[in-house]
Amino acid sequence: MALAGRLFDALREETRDTLGVTRAAYGAGEQFAHDLVAREAREVGLDVRVDAGGNLYAVLPGHGRTGRSIIVGSHLDSVPMGGNFDGAAGVLAGLAIAVSWRKAGFSLADDLVVMAIRAEESNWFPYSYVGSKMALGRLPAEALQVRRSDTGRTLAEHMIDLGLAPATIAAGIPQIEPSAVRAFIELHIEQGPVLIEEEQPVAVVTGIRGSFRYRQARVLGQYAHSGAVPRKYRRDAVVAAADLVMRLQRDWLRLEAEGHDMTFTVGQFATDPAQHAFSKIAGEVALSIDVRSHDQATLDRMHALCLAHFAAIEAEHGVVVEHGPLTGSEPATMAPDLVEGFATAQQDCGLCRFEMASGAGHDTATFAAAGVPSVMLFVRNQNGSHNPDEAMEMADFQLATHVLSTGLTRIV
Amino acid sequence: MALAGRLFDALREETRDTLGVTRAAYGAGEQFAHDLVAREAREVGLDVRVDAGGNLYAVLPGHGRTGRSIIVGSHLDSVPMGGNFDGAAGVLAGLAIAVSWRKAGFSLADDLVVMAIRAEESNWFPYSYVGSKMALGRLPAEALQVRRSDTGRTLAEHMIDLGLAPATIAAGIPQIEPSAVRAFIELHIEQGPVLIEEEQPVAVVTGIRGSFRYRQARVLGQYAHSGAVPRKYRRDAVVAAADLVMRLQRDWLRLEAEGHDMTFTVGQFATDPAQHAFSKIAGEVALSIDVRSHDQATLDRMHALCLAHFAAIEAEHGVVVEHGPLTGSEPATMAPDLVEGFATAQQDCGLCRFEMASGAGHDTATFAAAGVPSVMLFVRNQNGSHNPDEAMEMADFQLATHVLSTGLTRIV
Repeated sequence: MALAGRLFDALREETRDTLGVTRAAYGAGEQFAHDLVAREAREVGLDVRVDAGGNLYAVLPGHGRTGRSIIVGSHLDSVPMGGNFDGAAGVLAGLAIAVSWRKAGFSLADDLVVMAIRAEESNWFPYSYVGSKMALGRLPAEALQVRRSDTGRTLAEHMIDLGLAPATIAAGIPQIEPSAVRAFIELHIEQGPVLIEEEQPVAVVTGIRGSFRYRQARVLGQYAHSGAVPRKYRRDAVVAAADLVMRLQRDWLRLEAEGHDMTFTVGQFATDPAQHAFSKIAGEVALSIDVRSHDQATLDRMHALCLAHFAAIEAEHGVVVEHGPLTGSEPATMAPDLVEGFATAQQDCGLCRFEMASGAGHDTATFAAAGVPSVMLFVRNQNGSHNPDEAMEMADFQLATHVLSTGLTRIV
Repeated sequence: MALAGRLFDALREETRDTLGVTRAAYGAGEQFAHDLVAREAREVGLDVRVDAGGNLYAVLPGHGRTGRSIIVGSHLDSVPMGGNFDGAAGVLAGLAIAVSWRKAGFSLADDLVVMAIRAEESNWFPYSYVGSKMALGRLPAEALQVRRSDTGRTLAEHMIDLGLAPATIAAGIPQIEPSAVRAFIELHIEQGPVLIEEEQPVAVVTGIRGSFRYRQARVLGQYAHSGAVPRKYRRDAVVAAADLVMRLQRDWLRLEAEGHDMTFTVGQFATDPAQHAFSKIAGEVALSIDVRSHDQATLDRMHALCLAHFAAIEAEHGVVVEHGPLTGSEPATMAPDLVEGFATAQQDCGLCRFEMASGAGHDTATFAAAGVPSVMLFVRNQNGSHNPDEAMEMADFQLATHVLSTGLTRIV
């Protein structure tokens, strides 16, 4: 654990921003983190390679010549002014285990691969799971033309800057063979309050919520004088959009009461600063809708309700709902034997079994979608994530790493 | 009506801007309009005087030596790139009546005074009803130091440019004696859609709505990951604020059903662009609340409901409501005998009686507050107001002027 503590400190020191840390995908901060991990891995004699997309693999060869690998991985980029542990915790936990096993002369039958994945935070390139999709040959070629939000330059351009090979990625050539991966395990901070509220340091993740999203919906009404226009002649975009929010919120309460797993969030809701005024009925609201569940049937049901509400809001408020592009992801199922194995490992380590769904998306979802048996461990963390106040107790990280290493030895 | 048509054309020609017309308060466009009205009035032998604040009075002396006057007035300034009729219609209607009566040798027992009021549009000097408050000795001295939004120079400086007397105004000396005014009547375009929707050319105004406003309210929750935080741990500012909007909207429906006159508008509702994201629960919403009614009791009741909702929203959603400064204005009551007289005049002119409240503020409110019996007539107009597309049919203006002159002869 001295290793992980030292590397967390080095990362924080080098990638510190005005607030928190900033490690842009395919930028200087992320590259520093990759170089740091590669150097430490090489120092103890692990095999290190970098794939065409820039993902890093540090390998502790297995003693069984099985031709299979077990991957422990996560990402090393961060959101702007984010926290030091989101992503990095999973890579450093894996590295700590591989280094200590290497020093102790211990190995699994399968190769143990510590993987540092590129570009997981989609605020840089607005595309999900760039690095893990590259590794599995699943990134569409057009995604290489997506531009980074801060530089305006394409993903391909940023890759070339780092000496990587966008053409290979564009050709869809897998950098690892899914059928040869026995298991993918990602340790990650929880990013939510559940472990704190439940007073548990570690959770085994049972599934990753999928989502549907309308990121750029608009409700269009008509601007008019707030004092001079009676209610019956109004087409008030704020009232219409507020009504939409409350209808969906009531759906959530009802579905939750029926036992469905889901979340519903309108994170953005804004009248137009160029046109709005306290004395004007609003003619436009821009809003985002984000619905998540680990059950596809729940997502489908909420989506149908959503479309029905759009039509009802239009009819009742005289507005137009332009819902814009629909995006989202499918829920990811964790491998039951891995969930059971790591839950047993929790008990082996003197903890309670504690299982929960992941609300946030993770690279693990890409591996699960590619047919790789996958599982995640969550570490309790303070103050949420994607903000400078994100925190994690090193004692919790140690416990989680202990569960991880114990669980790895249980995989057969 | 040939006179009014000619003067509307002259005004439009001289004060035309890139779009619409611009007649800045105490600026060249407004002064041109005052000079135009004064010249026409003098040509037919009306007595013309200008007060210390620059308000213009054209007087057709009464035959009764009553010592009383009946004032027909409105303003001659416009918003930037506004319409030609907002304000000017009332002055030109009064002038057309006074000129035709003068030519015909007709007069009322009381003096008929056509008043052109300065600086009604508060975008120039951010202060309400500057000209009419000057006339009635009700403009606070500090208002003379308010700076014009385009020039940055004070109201006093602009007055001195025009040879006016800010010191007299600062001393609070009334330029007209309210107790000697039998009636103040303002004809104005409606600025809303009611007359168009109801297919009526003219309305008698029953009251001018007062208001209460929270222009800078904030709902403070907690930013958090949209997928990772279960409902029970959320403090979602968007849901809380949407709930507030819908509660107040339902109050409006209920009060309206009970017969109350009011409007409720949230013209501004915005998550923080620097912090919001589609994948983040919103930690803050800034919103404005504007409630208007011509009945103070209705305003008081809605205000009490509003405060109760703030407390309920805080308790139910775990947020803090910072309502910020409370501003507003008192409703202005129209004189019942004048409302009745002008409504009867509508019938005399072959129209239906049609009465409505004014949602927008007008100089008439200053006269009513000073104890002058007051009333307004609204003329149907197209495309709202305060924009270049504002329009009015001359046939509607003629009908309204006919109702005005008929009503004037009914005042006893």
